[in-house]
Amino acid sequence: MPVGTLASVKGIPQDTLEELGAQIILGNTYHLYLRPGVETVRRMGGLHGFMSWPRAILTDSGGFQVFSLNELRKVSEEGVTFRSHLDGSSHFFSPESAMEAQIGFGADIIMAFDECTEFPADRERVRASMEMTARWAARSKKYFEDHKDGVPWGGSSQLSAVSHQPVSSRASADGQQIPRFARNDKGEGDATQSLFGIVQGGMDRELRRESALRTIEIGFPGYAIGGLSVGEPRELTREIVESTLEHLPADKPRYLMGVGTPEEIVEYANLGVDMMDCVLPTRAARHGLLFTSEGKVSIKQARYAQDPGPLDPNCACRVCQRYARAYLRHLYASNEVLAQVLNTIHNLSFYLDTMRRVRHSIRLGEECGFLSIVWSRPKP
Amino acid sequence: MPVGTLASVKGIPQDTLEELGAQIILGNTYHLYLRPGVETVRRMGGLHGFMSWPRAILTDSGGFQVFSLNELRKVSEEGVTFRSHLDGSSHFFSPESAMEAQIGFGADIIMAFDECTEFPADRERVRASMEMTARWAARSKKYFEDHKDGVPWGGSSQLSAVSHQPVSSRASADGQQIPRFARNDKGEGDATQSLFGIVQGGMDRELRRESALRTIEIGFPGYAIGGLSVGEPRELTREIVESTLEHLPADKPRYLMGVGTPEEIVEYANLGVDMMDCVLPTRAARHGLLFTSEGKVSIKQARYAQDPGPLDPNCACRVCQRYARAYLRHLYASNEVLAQVLNTIHNLSFYLDTMRRVRHSIRLGEECGFLSIVWSRPKP
Repeated sequence: MPVGTLASVKGIPQDTLEELGAQIILGNTYHLYLRPGVETVRRMGGLHGFMSWPRAILTDSGGFQVFSLNELRKVSEEGVTFRSHLDGSSHFFSPESAMEAQIGFGADIIMAFDECTEFPADRERVRASMEMTARWAARSKKYFEDHKDGVPWGGSSQLSAVSHQPVSSRASADGQQIPRFARNDKGEGDATQSLFGIVQGGMDRELRRESALRTIEIGFPGYAIGGLSVGEPRELTREIVESTLEHLPADKPRYLMGVGTPEEIVEYANLGVDMMDCVLPTRAARHGLLFTSEGKVSIKQARYAQDPGPLDPNCACRVCQRYARAYLRHLYASNEVLAQVLNTIHNLSFYLDTMRRVRHSIRLGEECGFLSIVWSRPKP
Repeated sequence: MPVGTLASVKGIPQDTLEELGAQIILGNTYHLYLRPGVETVRRMGGLHGFMSWPRAILTDSGGFQVFSLNELRKVSEEGVTFRSHLDGSSHFFSPESAMEAQIGFGADIIMAFDECTEFPADRERVRASMEMTARWAARSKKYFEDHKDGVPWGGSSQLSAVSHQPVSSRASADGQQIPRFARNDKGEGDATQSLFGIVQGGMDRELRRESALRTIEIGFPGYAIGGLSVGEPRELTREIVESTLEHLPADKPRYLMGVGTPEEIVEYANLGVDMMDCVLPTRAARHGLLFTSEGKVSIKQARYAQDPGPLDPNCACRVCQRYARAYLRHLYASNEVLAQVLNTIHNLSFYLDTMRRVRHSIRLGEECGFLSIVWSRPKP
């Protein structure tokens, strides 16, 4: 899932995302809650209407950003008090308010409010944090079940009579609709969002197991593995992912949050992960780091200044089909905005191509090892 | 002509420019000479190959930027010594070196090296500057005639055997080629660039007349009016344009440099101007100022925060067809790069639509007065 923090995958128009084949994108509840705010998005028919994106959207719970962007947060059983990174104003997120926000945003998949346990942490701290996340998951589910009719779209919505008809109802240039995960696209009947639970438990396999079982006991249509990629060594990430997956039902989506490199997403898909999100393709693009079939390319290097070849000779994206490395290098070296736009298009194309190959391999019943010759995996 | 200073119309991929119907874009010799440099562009087959733009390109002479960006310049009969705004390094532009650079860049239309006279200036200063521009025009033409075979494309090019085959030779997604002004598109025979002369003479009608006659006497396939939009009142601009046009042959392109608003480009087309360039549509877009059929819109205003309507209900561009004002306002308020991209697409679309209507009106034999009800013209 490409990350579109503020209802925009940075620099990329929505029709380009459609052409790239993005089926689902992610929005960040913390950022959207601060700007433009829940009420604005709700009035525009939710994120789909607001940003004119007819395909699927997932919003995170806000928990991760509250923890990673706020050094002055105060956590209690009730929730988290935090200060806006924009203006220092004070705000409060609880399982209930995080659900209220995500129902207003109207994403197809929304996430239970969790505490992302810091790394490293001692076992007692990890246990206490994991147990609070489990209690918050139950509260998230209760609030969601009681209020899910408030979603700003769908036949049973209390807001379906709202008169605002955004321009985006004319949207989607390509006409090719991707089925949205949990929505009745006719807007009839019991169209609603899907609330996923999040497994925590730090780097402790036993606590991860316990977290998985408690979350499954509450019951969700999909399960996420949170609290990883927080600074731990990659082999440890893999070990925790592998052991946690054993406890999650294979017939429901399993979502690994916040990973990873192209090599990692293939690796985790091999282990049984169904969904991943990461800022890496978009953020690396902004720093001139490009993923190609021949390995990583740092386009800022002088060696590309007069290179007439394509960025990736094996890539069919519109950037590789049209522009020379010399031009991409010039745009980056000259701080031209088009550098970010073109680099992001290529990196997203490479990631989405990678996932298309993963799905193809799964359909063929193979292991997805086709990328292993490209990136040499660090030895443990 | 949209302005693509550094071989990029800021934030806009070339295929989008093609879809918008841009037939010709402008590059700035001063900027391109500093970055990426003449040799890099020449080796990539000129600007067309370097930036993968198969339609027409015009480069300015570098004169205007040398004068507007360099307070420490030293002007002599020979040329101008100036310091780079990037690193302070010292450089020298003469009619000969400006031609050498522009032949290397390989634009379809290139401009004689001129001195853009400052405003205000006394009559003796304006006369001396105009006379030097006339001498520089003759030197520009002589150098061009002696070296035009050095253009990095075309059948008679000394460089046509260069082995670099940039990826951009596969370019142009839409396949719809716009005839380039002065180029034999088969790359055969006497394909070459067209060098235009520039009329100076400040705000003095008699000196403008003299400059026009001297430039015509040297002989060029097109003539530009330079040295306007340098701080003078708009009514004075119009007066000088109108009087200068009288002295320029109507059967050759007449190019007014550096204007203007949508209202102005209609007005000047009415007077007989054939070509204009301006950073206004792209620069204003970056500052959230949008041109619409209903007047100017400053999208940053809070009044648009929950506005579900399109930016311009009469515009067929991909931005107006898809996004709500509320979303565009959010992108701008949140400093999202997509704000610049979408705003620029709309403004360019509006400008190019305006020029399409101007051409249509000309074909119909009408005055191009259709925009006069939209913008109220300031009274003198």
